[in-house]
Amino acid sequence: MRVHASGITVKKDVNFSEWYTQVIVKAGLADYSPVKGSIVVRPYGYEIWNTIRNLLDDDLKETGHQNGFMPMLIPESLLSKEKSHFEGFTPEVYWVTKAGGTELSERLALRPTSETIVYASFSKWIESYRDLPLKINFWNSALRAEIKNTKPFIRNSEFLWQEGHTAHLSEKDAQIEVMLILGIYQRLIEELLAVPTIAGLKSDREKFVGAVYTMTLESLMPDGKALQVATSHHLGQNFSKPFEIRYLDQKNEQCFVWQTSWGISWRLIGAIVMTHGDDKGLVLPPCIAPIQAVIVPIFRDDEAQNVKLRAHEIGDELRKSGIKVLIDDREEYTSGWKFNEWELKGIPLRINLGPRDIMEAQVELVRRDTTQKFKISRSSVVNSVSSILKEIQENLFRRAKENMTQNMTVVDTYDSFKISLGKGGFISTAWCGNQDCEIRVKEETGADLRVIPLEGQEVIPNQLKVCFCCKRTAAKIAIFAHAY
Amino acid sequence: MRVHASGITVKKDVNFSEWYTQVIVKAGLADYSPVKGSIVVRPYGYEIWNTIRNLLDDDLKETGHQNGFMPMLIPESLLSKEKSHFEGFTPEVYWVTKAGGTELSERLALRPTSETIVYASFSKWIESYRDLPLKINFWNSALRAEIKNTKPFIRNSEFLWQEGHTAHLSEKDAQIEVMLILGIYQRLIEELLAVPTIAGLKSDREKFVGAVYTMTLESLMPDGKALQVATSHHLGQNFSKPFEIRYLDQKNEQCFVWQTSWGISWRLIGAIVMTHGDDKGLVLPPCIAPIQAVIVPIFRDDEAQNVKLRAHEIGDELRKSGIKVLIDDREEYTSGWKFNEWELKGIPLRINLGPRDIMEAQVELVRRDTTQKFKISRSSVVNSVSSILKEIQENLFRRAKENMTQNMTVVDTYDSFKISLGKGGFISTAWCGNQDCEIRVKEETGADLRVIPLEGQEVIPNQLKVCFCCKRTAAKIAIFAHAY
Repeated sequence: MRVHASGITVKKDVNFSEWYTQVIVKAGLADYSPVKGSIVVRPYGYEIWNTIRNLLDDDLKETGHQNGFMPMLIPESLLSKEKSHFEGFTPEVYWVTKAGGTELSERLALRPTSETIVYASFSKWIESYRDLPLKINFWNSALRAEIKNTKPFIRNSEFLWQEGHTAHLSEKDAQIEVMLILGIYQRLIEELLAVPTIAGLKSDREKFVGAVYTMTLESLMPDGKALQVATSHHLGQNFSKPFEIRYLDQKNEQCFVWQTSWGISWRLIGAIVMTHGDDKGLVLPPCIAPIQAVIVPIFRDDEAQNVKLRAHEIGDELRKSGIKVLIDDREEYTSGWKFNEWELKGIPLRINLGPRDIMEAQVELVRRDTTQKFKISRSSVVNSVSSILKEIQENLFRRAKENMTQNMTVVDTYDSFKISLGKGGFISTAWCGNQDCEIRVKEETGADLRVIPLEGQEVIPNQLKVCFCCKRTAAKIAIFAHAY
Repeated sequence: MRVHASGITVKKDVNFSEWYTQVIVKAGLADYSPVKGSIVVRPYGYEIWNTIRNLLDDDLKETGHQNGFMPMLIPESLLSKEKSHFEGFTPEVYWVTKAGGTELSERLALRPTSETIVYASFSKWIESYRDLPLKINFWNSALRAEIKNTKPFIRNSEFLWQEGHTAHLSEKDAQIEVMLILGIYQRLIEELLAVPTIAGLKSDREKFVGAVYTMTLESLMPDGKALQVATSHHLGQNFSKPFEIRYLDQKNEQCFVWQTSWGISWRLIGAIVMTHGDDKGLVLPPCIAPIQAVIVPIFRDDEAQNVKLRAHEIGDELRKSGIKVLIDDREEYTSGWKFNEWELKGIPLRINLGPRDIMEAQVELVRRDTTQKFKISRSSVVNSVSSILKEIQENLFRRAKENMTQNMTVVDTYDSFKISLGKGGFISTAWCGNQDCEIRVKEETGADLRVIPLEGQEVIPNQLKVCFCCKRTAAKIAIFAHAY
């Protein structure tokens, strides 16, 4: 554990960007690296990623997905097989041109995403309908040369993620997979990370290059900017045709498979930090906290042994009931220093235990989310801690959801759109469905069409019958925002 | 599950190299990739790697190590900070020279290993003796341009591994860490992978470039060639000085840290395949098999429902007692086809269940390692399967250990050395300790000094008092072999 000379020195609502970076670095999640645009992830940050990974991996295995490994170098000829995909990614591809002292005859891309190399294998592995569906996931890193606007976990030249790739018998099967994954992602992000999202469709302009359509989960950060936290793509036969991924059906006819791909990245850690953190530092939802409760024994020298002993007894009880607990009985730091340290690191619950507490058969609990302090009886520790951790989890989600709801504005004119945009947040409005309006809005205001939400399309209110921008007939409710 | 038109078509002792490749590909562990020298790892192979990873990760966490993430791109100026390290790796480094359309001002290496980038961070994170020891592990891939003699899992341009990096207060602490890790590796490899090893020191010529010394685990493959399966390096202050990794000690004096690094890779999968496999395919040790037992219900159409039901009952019982079991009740394949398939994939134990077995309250077990078949009573299934899996694990290790012992020859002259070398295996002999003999042997015979074993140095037999090669006084017992 490193010593942090000081806590966070800026307020979240005064300088959000600087606050964010300070929390990342001072809470020990990540650090800058000697490579421009890349970060180093420290054990505390990695443990959070690993927890997310394990939770999602269980869900994916339960739904019949398996993990594999693909090389990170992709020959240019392979990357360029699907044209729009290649054109979309090529501006940010890192190219290997030399191996040792030898110039390569064909340059190799560091994978910006693995569709092309995965599908080269799929075309070998799939022969018959019996080989389908094929559902493989990869836990790896992707590399995209990001030189400006980099931000730890949000936009980096290399990032950890998972990318799932599937092949199906029919278009319908692929479409079902796209939604199955979107649902798994949404439960993970909302129930465990306590980050509320809006699920929906990306516009054609914003979809994954090479996809037929892209489903997305969009969340809203406290600075009023949107953050895309997960995507699930229906690829149709856009890749199976150039990559010749065919199967023999039961009538012995050759058919192209239908495909999907989907991913989440460590950007989710960024979403957690932004959504829940406060002026004292990180606040972690209990479901993904590497340490859910920290016990701080408070003692003078002559009482040390007894207080520590009692702290370890409590620790053992909590551990047995499945709570991730740490006992901070280090003698080289003061209690005050420890309180600051664990607040900075966002441990959901702190348990203070002093000689007097022992005498009175109680402990003191301090909630990280509300800063509430209260005494509970020693005998109820396990039950109380469990139920308070649940409350914290719920409270974090409720608070974030309220924030998202309060910062969702419905507008029906371009003027009110621009006014709302100035305040930040999601702007829900009616859109004609044409790219020219989308492009005009982007050019004039910098806002993107983030999502065409799944919910709320059925009954379009009266004032939203025409496009806010061009006044042609509205086709859809769409949500715009400035975005990361 | 892919259909394998045929099993292994060559015998292990006739064409070992071709046999190995067929097992890898036909058992569905890995496949060739469109990138020269790289492989694609299929779910079955990845699951074995993941099992090894989880087992080792638990050991590392218990001994106070934590995981982190480091970028894979290393600027040339950083990679070259430790001179011998740079010179050792530079012939096989992949260089990124372009990002998108832009030529980079400094080229970036794909990590061949991460010492340099990790230690750039260590120098920031370590300030005081309280920050030590710092013990961080990375699960990632490393890239080394291998163009010839590539072999799946054994030598590839990209490979999955873990690399641990630690910093300590004293030289002694670092030396203890080197041996702690060597012991963890040896237990993992011998007890769980059932691959016997010889632990010892590498010669200066063979040590890691940049290390003070390297400890190694060497195993012997059935074709008589040695395979290095793990290394643990004492780095001394060779990196802490150029990277300026210093701490303030308790007397407030600046000291350089003492360091170690160590790793194992997916090469261990290659060792498992080579060591245990046979003419029918893969044979997996139960401790690392993704599926430990497969139940094959055998039935005609009219009996299907009942036999399947009983098979699932047995499956549930086994699963509850912690055994990884699969029930293969697919109707589109014959029992014979299934037997071949699961033998090819090396499942340690097969359980056959037909209508007659049900009537007689028994099941048939078939051991993969010995091909023994025997009936056991239905009521003893859980106990029998557990104990037979243990026996299989022990038998595989015993068999491999016998093979290693039988192929270890002690020689005292260069002539007998050369004769033994022709037969393959480990050659134990007395060595003067000088590199000139090592180099002469390598040039004249192609054999390497694999390891100076920890055991057996105390009492050097009479006939081994002089170097087998130069006849100068012998300094050490050393083991030579042709190697992968």
